[in-house]
Amino acid sequence: MTATAPAYPIESIRERAQPVGATLWLTGLPSAGKSTIAAALADRLRAHGIAVEVLDGDEMRTLLSPDLGYSRADRDANVARIGWVAARLARHGVLVLAPVVSPYQAARDLVRRTHDQAGVRLLEVHVATPVEVCSVRDVKGLYARQRAGDLHGLTGVDGDYEEPAHPELRIDTSDCTVDDAVDRLLALLRKENVL
Amino acid sequence: MTATAPAYPIESIRERAQPVGATLWLTGLPSAGKSTIAAALADRLRAHGIAVEVLDGDEMRTLLSPDLGYSRADRDANVARIGWVAARLARHGVLVLAPVVSPYQAARDLVRRTHDQAGVRLLEVHVATPVEVCSVRDVKGLYARQRAGDLHGLTGVDGDYEEPAHPELRIDTSDCTVDDAVDRLLALLRKENVL
Repeated sequence: MTATAPAYPIESIRERAQPVGATLWLTGLPSAGKSTIAAALADRLRAHGIAVEVLDGDEMRTLLSPDLGYSRADRDANVARIGWVAARLARHGVLVLAPVVSPYQAARDLVRRTHDQAGVRLLEVHVATPVEVCSVRDVKGLYARQRAGDLHGLTGVDGDYEEPAHPELRIDTSDCTVDDAVDRLLALLRKENVL
Repeated sequence: MTATAPAYPIESIRERAQPVGATLWLTGLPSAGKSTIAAALADRLRAHGIAVEVLDGDEMRTLLSPDLGYSRADRDANVARIGWVAARLARHGVLVLAPVVSPYQAARDLVRRTHDQAGVRLLEVHVATPVEVCSVRDVKGLYARQRAGDLHGLTGVDGDYEEPAHPELRIDTSDCTVDDAVDRLLALLRKENVL
């Protein structure tokens, strides 16, 4: 946590009677911490009675997109579907957290347009943990499989990852705790008038 | 409209401060009237400030499932995806209207299980307009194309349609007006404590 990160008392999270629907989209490499900080943020918000839906990229593949693989077209289709569902939920006042690798800028831009068309906010967060840290964490064993030659096209290693040029926030989880990351996301949501 | 259909003043639609999330699933043949009565019901509810989302089977194919065709597997996948999105919306208090041909009982049963797991109600409405009436209406020209030999597997003609055995409601739109059909759906929603 840097010295400039805001102190954020959880008692003051909720200022509105009704939350403003919006999507917080977390993009980054595998094991960057996207799902972990989304789950921790969801817990914090739910404890305050705020309606949250987590659309986790990996879970969505099982539930919504069992047909999709890891080609660029399939990755983009997965991102587009999650974006579409997120926008539908957000326009009914739900705060959607979407931890999704989403390596291509064009697909992320499409998600933004989908939200613009639905009249709801999209906040893009780049979980910018360096690949050296992600590959040591290796929560799902993907980096090990890539090194062993079992897996090709791993995002950020031998597969593309296009960093967002102008995300609303960048978080490197190698130099902050989960709680610190959640504080920074909450600060963003308040700054953008979502909370 | 039959003599037993309830008179239903629109002024009394809303009894709750917050709507109860639920899905009203309308299954039936092409041109049975599913989308028409769903749109009319949505208009009536929105005029009373009730949050409604219409997940129309045909629209979903464009927006969420451009990859899917009309094989049994693809039809079932389309139904499952719409059911999944509906359950997610419904559990955040949205009243979802889903006019979807959904010809197979097994796929509709899966939608019901998805809703059970999400802890939200699914009300199944069989829009049971006879095929003789649907084929004359033929809103999208499908019946004419089937007769001309341009299209095979048309639901209810040379393609399967498994009628629901125990729907919460059956409506034959050949003997009632759109307004009458909407009244009957509103009566169902009240009877089931959704409104």
